[in-house]
Amino acid sequence: MMKIEHIGIAVNDLDASNQVFEKLLGRAAYKQEIVEGEKVKVSFFQSGDLKVELLQATDEESPIARFLRQQKEGIHHLAFAVENIREEVKRLKAEGFTFLNEAAKDGADNKLIVFLHPKSTNGVLVELCQDKNAYG
Amino acid sequence: MMKIEHIGIAVNDLDASNQVFEKLLGRAAYKQEIVEGEKVKVSFFQSGDLKVELLQATDEESPIARFLRQQKEGIHHLAFAVENIREEVKRLKAEGFTFLNEAAKDGADNKLIVFLHPKSTNGVLVELCQDKNAYG
Repeated sequence: MMKIEHIGIAVNDLDASNQVFEKLLGRAAYKQEIVEGEKVKVSFFQSGDLKVELLQATDEESPIARFLRQQKEGIHHLAFAVENIREEVKRLKAEGFTFLNEAAKDGADNKLIVFLHPKSTNGVLVELCQDKNAYG
Repeated sequence: MMKIEHIGIAVNDLDASNQVFEKLLGRAAYKQEIVEGEKVKVSFFQSGDLKVELLQATDEESPIARFLRQQKEGIHHLAFAVENIREEVKRLKAEGFTFLNEAAKDGADNKLIVFLHPKSTNGVLVELCQDKNAYG
C-alpha cells in the first residue's frame, strides 16, 4: 500500500509562507533547498509522520510558475512513498493510469520522483517518490 | 504540533472515484458515510497513518458543489488533528489567522471541525478536527 510522504503547496514567496506555516504548525521548517531540475526553491515542515513542502518557482519556466499563472497559491501535489518506483509505475500503468514522466527524475529531499497525469487521478497531481539510496 | 489527519478530495462521482483510488492505493475504501450538515457523501481510504477522504456533493448548495463549479476535481482541504479544538482556534486567532467557522461543527468520522479561511493560509483550505469523544 502506498503511504503519503508529503504534501506540496505552491507559494509565491517562500520566506513569507515559511512564516505562515511556522505559525500554523507550531514549528519552523527543518530544511530548505533548491531543486535545479524542477526550478524550485522548497522548504519542508514535519507534521506527524509526513511533511509539508512549500514550493516557490526560481524561474518562469518552472512547473510551479506555470501552476501559479493558471490558478492561485494552494495545494499543488500529493506525494506517495514507494519502495520500488519502477515496479509501482508498471503496476499503475497496467491499471490504466498515465504519467507526466515515466522515467524517475531527481526531486527534493534526495528522492527520485515520477508524476502521474492528473487526468487519470481525479485532478490530483500525484507524485511517487523513492529514496535515492534505496534505488537499485 | 498539529498532525495531518486526512486529505479531502472533491469528486464528481464517488463510486467512479472510489474505483480510481482503490487502484491507486492498492486497497478499498474502509468506510462510506453521509454528512448531512455539509451535504456530502464521503468515503475514506487509509494510507499509512493518514486518510484520504473523497467527497461528493449531495446537494447544489454543498460546499463541494460550489468548489466544483469554480474549479475542477482535485484536492479540496487538508485536515489537521488537534487535541483541543477551542484552544487551537484561540491560538491561531492570536497568530492572525481567520476562520470560516470558529464554532466547531459536525464533520465526518465522528469529528468536530472548523475551517480556516484560505486567505490566511496561502490558499490552502485548512480544517482542524477533534474526535467528538475527546471534546469536553
